[in-house]
Amino acid sequence: MSNTKIAILGAGPSGLAQLRAFEAARLAGVKNLPEIICYEKQNEIGGMWNYTWRTGLDRNGEPVHGSMYRYLWSNGPKECLEFADYSFEEHFGKPIPSYPPREVLKDYIMGRIDKQDIRKYIRFECPVRWVTFDDDTQKFTVTVMNHKTGEQETGEFDYVVVATGHFSTPNMPYFKGLEEFPNRVMHAHDFRDALEFEGDDILLVGGSYSAEDIGTQCYKYGTKSVTISYRSQPLGYDWPEGIREVPLISHFEGDVAHFIDGTSQAFDAVIMCTGYLFHFPFLPDELRLQTHNCLYPENLYKGVFWQPNPKLIYLGMQDQYFTFNMFDAQAWYARDVILGEIELPDLATREADEKKWLAEYEKVQTVDQEIDFQALYIRDLTNVTDYPEFAVEKQGEIFKQWQKDKKVDIMGFREKSYRSTLTNTLAPELPQPWLEILDDTLDHFLNLTSIKEKKQKKQKKTAS
Amino acid sequence: MSNTKIAILGAGPSGLAQLRAFEAARLAGVKNLPEIICYEKQNEIGGMWNYTWRTGLDRNGEPVHGSMYRYLWSNGPKECLEFADYSFEEHFGKPIPSYPPREVLKDYIMGRIDKQDIRKYIRFECPVRWVTFDDDTQKFTVTVMNHKTGEQETGEFDYVVVATGHFSTPNMPYFKGLEEFPNRVMHAHDFRDALEFEGDDILLVGGSYSAEDIGTQCYKYGTKSVTISYRSQPLGYDWPEGIREVPLISHFEGDVAHFIDGTSQAFDAVIMCTGYLFHFPFLPDELRLQTHNCLYPENLYKGVFWQPNPKLIYLGMQDQYFTFNMFDAQAWYARDVILGEIELPDLATREADEKKWLAEYEKVQTVDQEIDFQALYIRDLTNVTDYPEFAVEKQGEIFKQWQKDKKVDIMGFREKSYRSTLTNTLAPELPQPWLEILDDTLDHFLNLTSIKEKKQKKQKKTAS
Repeated sequence: MSNTKIAILGAGPSGLAQLRAFEAARLAGVKNLPEIICYEKQNEIGGMWNYTWRTGLDRNGEPVHGSMYRYLWSNGPKECLEFADYSFEEHFGKPIPSYPPREVLKDYIMGRIDKQDIRKYIRFECPVRWVTFDDDTQKFTVTVMNHKTGEQETGEFDYVVVATGHFSTPNMPYFKGLEEFPNRVMHAHDFRDALEFEGDDILLVGGSYSAEDIGTQCYKYGTKSVTISYRSQPLGYDWPEGIREVPLISHFEGDVAHFIDGTSQAFDAVIMCTGYLFHFPFLPDELRLQTHNCLYPENLYKGVFWQPNPKLIYLGMQDQYFTFNMFDAQAWYARDVILGEIELPDLATREADEKKWLAEYEKVQTVDQEIDFQALYIRDLTNVTDYPEFAVEKQGEIFKQWQKDKKVDIMGFREKSYRSTLTNTLAPELPQPWLEILDDTLDHFLNLTSIKEKKQKKQKKTAS
Repeated sequence: MSNTKIAILGAGPSGLAQLRAFEAARLAGVKNLPEIICYEKQNEIGGMWNYTWRTGLDRNGEPVHGSMYRYLWSNGPKECLEFADYSFEEHFGKPIPSYPPREVLKDYIMGRIDKQDIRKYIRFECPVRWVTFDDDTQKFTVTVMNHKTGEQETGEFDYVVVATGHFSTPNMPYFKGLEEFPNRVMHAHDFRDALEFEGDDILLVGGSYSAEDIGTQCYKYGTKSVTISYRSQPLGYDWPEGIREVPLISHFEGDVAHFIDGTSQAFDAVIMCTGYLFHFPFLPDELRLQTHNCLYPENLYKGVFWQPNPKLIYLGMQDQYFTFNMFDAQAWYARDVILGEIELPDLATREADEKKWLAEYEKVQTVDQEIDFQALYIRDLTNVTDYPEFAVEKQGEIFKQWQKDKKVDIMGFREKSYRSTLTNTLAPELPQPWLEILDDTLDHFLNLTSIKEKKQKKQKKTAS
């Protein structure tokens, strides 16, 4: 057995991808696999997909990882995030609609893991406290707090895989007067349940996915009015009555928000949909990725290997069109480097490669180009590993159509269906309008029957 | 100048006490003072008394320190927390009532500091990341994240003073059904503004100061009903209509809480007043205090010095009747040890002393005995330093009377007045009932005039 030791930090989609990559090698008969420990802060796998009612700090006093809320549905087609080695159809035993709710997606993520007994590598309730690298021994020392035992554990590792995500630590702006605002102020990270805002006038600050999704969800569950305040440009969707967009806040006065166009309104709650920080409190500066949310963070070779020390591996640090399958592509590549199947070039070559990609990224202007860029990046990774084919370019085209669907109908785009690039099956249509499906449980979703079908069934029953 | 270097972690009341203790020595002409750096996570001094509208994580992504809320008034008489070297009367230039609101107390804390130019030692927005101790060099290495520069700083120190408090990291229990509770669930740590709960039926879980204070405050600001659920025993005050106590929750069903006595009620919000964790994510196990909230935590000599390594100093880790002046007493003692004025005995002697105190603490049964025990502890510290006399035993008697006042009138005890043990001045009476003073600002409080006086003034004016 190899003496190589790997620490994976986080058991969300990225960390699980790394575990799965090594397990795939084991199943393929590869010997001399490294020893792996995966440290997870939460008490379950799934990372962001692991819904919790908690906000702020968790039961161990650690920052709550999840930004997930009840009634969340995938905001992109599932056909674009399908694991190449495990289709939705395989997991559920039948085709399902293109936009599943959270619980369905989590079930899918967990299914791949539980099928292969990967949990044994994971130590739960073990947030990482501090990581160092010793130039002499060329090893990392990782110290974690094991909340189950109440004691810390320290281990030496040859590789560290940082898979702790970057949609977890809220970026929380200040506006003058907020300290006197008498109602609720929160970040999207702490949003849990649209029903808390039933009948309320709410203000969402921000112009991206969080504002769009929380806004439409609150509309769906009976919020009186949704006002979205943007900094640079409005989302610009064809909003239904009850949702509107306004420019940036200038200040608050009591419960009234004033906007820079001179208008104002009183609000029952303010939800900051203002994005997230890259936050690695367990890493010293010399190991710490510093970037904003973009498609090609600097200092990472192949978007993965820390340039100054490529034994430090970052997964999923990109802004994301592609998600689960991109993490897989990265994890398979990282695995092959660790196994010696792929040899890393020297620093100068690595930096030249990064520079080339950054130059390409510079040219990207439109959303379609962003999608193509990320597809190209993934293809570059999968080209040299045995990660199964999943037609990344075809999925890119689905993403482009998804953009159009949203433009046409922001409240109804989840009723569209796409064809799996793995199974070639066209997803069944969502049998009811998304706005009318208030129960988001797995059971309900898998047994959704259209109102039409229900009526037909009923008539049949009555007739017989 | 001495080569001794000290890191103080935190610039709240305890950390400031340590800075003040050294400043007092400097003003008294002591030479060879050590070099001090105080690292503070927030961007201002005051620790817990530094109100923020933020909850969860702060603007740097660090856990919010403050558990403070708007409209908070001191829940104990100010005569029991007066700094022995700086009276309230000196600070405000006149006597003020015995129970001031938060802003008044913060002003008082800050006044002592600003009078003496102590801020120059403090580095703001610098949360501590990791602390180690090297047995060979006998020095601590402290790494902090300087959020102002975006870079980490590492320093070597002879002493580390941990003054980060222990009412900051919420202890958050789980009850069956909470994940389906459709309204707000939060910890007292995140409570900010009673007005958010105007007209609501709220459930407070817990039987101590948080429940008592948040309950009465919500009552004051128009919450429809307050239900306090206790585990072991009710607070047992003579509550007004609108506040009641019930036993422990068995489970939730939708928005309904079921209690173990078989009763149930629907709630608009649940606030967990369930205490705090001792949380030092920056300390390795060998330096980390592990205790519950009590009057004499184990492993601390004189309640301050970490037994296995007394160069590590903990301030304010006790449960607290006495607060600011107890932190001062500890800080003065720690200073004298660092300056060599007091010699620490060997480990065996230190442990015997701790054992003696723990044995005394074992005997404590009643609240009055607790107060006496803490007074005795403080007296033991101040006996051997030059911290000015503040009649700790007399203050203990005031605490005992305070307990009685609360029993008599939980909604009105803040209208009582006490005599300062420093100035011997009897505090002026609160000129209006506490329940009627909705404006808690410093200006308003310092200019409070009784309705009676106001009427008299008006009559005079009219007459003249």
